[in-house]
Amino acid sequence: MVETLTLYTAKICPFAQRVELALEESGAKYEKFQVDLQNKPEWYAPKVNPASKVPALAYGGPPVPPSQPSPESTKLAESLVLLEFVADLFPASHLLPKSPVERAKARFFIDAVSTKLLPKFFGFVMRGEVEGGETLYKAIEELQTLIEGKYALGDEWSIADAALTPFLARLELSLRKDLGGFKEGEGTKLLGRLKEGTKFEVFWKYFENVTQRESFKKTFDEVRGSVATLFPFRQDVQYSSP
Amino acid sequence: MVETLTLYTAKICPFAQRVELALEESGAKYEKFQVDLQNKPEWYAPKVNPASKVPALAYGGPPVPPSQPSPESTKLAESLVLLEFVADLFPASHLLPKSPVERAKARFFIDAVSTKLLPKFFGFVMRGEVEGGETLYKAIEELQTLIEGKYALGDEWSIADAALTPFLARLELSLRKDLGGFKEGEGTKLLGRLKEGTKFEVFWKYFENVTQRESFKKTFDEVRGSVATLFPFRQDVQYSSP
Repeated sequence: MVETLTLYTAKICPFAQRVELALEESGAKYEKFQVDLQNKPEWYAPKVNPASKVPALAYGGPPVPPSQPSPESTKLAESLVLLEFVADLFPASHLLPKSPVERAKARFFIDAVSTKLLPKFFGFVMRGEVEGGETLYKAIEELQTLIEGKYALGDEWSIADAALTPFLARLELSLRKDLGGFKEGEGTKLLGRLKEGTKFEVFWKYFENVTQRESFKKTFDEVRGSVATLFPFRQDVQYSSP
Repeated sequence: MVETLTLYTAKICPFAQRVELALEESGAKYEKFQVDLQNKPEWYAPKVNPASKVPALAYGGPPVPPSQPSPESTKLAESLVLLEFVADLFPASHLLPKSPVERAKARFFIDAVSTKLLPKFFGFVMRGEVEGGETLYKAIEELQTLIEGKYALGDEWSIADAALTPFLARLELSLRKDLGGFKEGEGTKLLGRLKEGTKFEVFWKYFENVTQRESFKKTFDEVRGSVATLFPFRQDVQYSSP
């Protein structure tokens, strides 16, 4: 029996997009509810996620409108927990390989994203720490060594890619538009360094592969969603598609 | 076919004990190699774990002495990745439940240990931040709400317990012996608050359940291993069993 599945998400949120990617790739039937993070519905924390964050999933229980969550459904939260959950729920979709060693490699990759890339991403892109984004540059260099082929694990897309892609997309956009917590000009400068020569060839090929997938195109909205809301301090800027 | 399995570990390290617990509970045949963290063998980083940390696992390949790791074995690292790996490798041992929802609960519990308890544990026990351990007290209070029964998930021991137990054991010991980064007297004072009345009854019952298991007793050495080396700045103190 297929259980009902409702994702509470927000376009702005890279953590939530992780789960959207996995659900799209799983082929699952699910409902999406956009939570306005600036003005959360008062039922959201008590009835869906006490931490009041997206993403969250309601699983099972009677079919109800997402804005009236049933106490009978199971509520689950935390993006990486939800990626594993989607992979467990739809084993036929192979969002994780079957081999224990390959599964461990996927999780090691995800751990590297969490502990090595993200602190530098937030540090430079959001808070403008470290001039020239030097530590972010190094983190990308290190991450690149873990990419095994077309996707993180090789030929097959997996939740390791779901964990990383939303951040890469926002990173590339932020540098390209030169919009972030960093000083003017530092975004395009770092992007220039990352595009120089062939040093980051594997990384950019990977970037192309993951962002060309339908699951990504369907869940990333450059104009409305990601830039304008990621950097609300630049609301004066007119955003346009590249 | 059963593959060879070698765990690189260190008695002092709670992260490494996590994996020892899972391996003991799995019933697997494995070899243990104690890495001297103050004086690591020169082959350890190049041949086992480039990050030069424990725990690490060597899996498969020809049978070799642990000090001569074969290039043919797969090397894996990061304690939480290894817990999942052991659960995947020995599905009959049920180190994780089968139901996707229960598995998600286990991972949510582990996430709470990592993001909520551990920063406060290290902050107070190791660095003596926040007088009286107030934030650690709150973190334990919050963690207690996630304990569902005899073990984290209810009746059955799981890798969620493996992730937490090594830290609880060191915490209790540190407070009881009043040895840590905190000021003299603050350890026993916090322990007193945690033992007062019935507020932490669920927590202490849980503590008893997880530390009474054979897997724990076999992998925790209070006298030689954990205190003296966890707090090398108090090497003058004579340690004795409780």
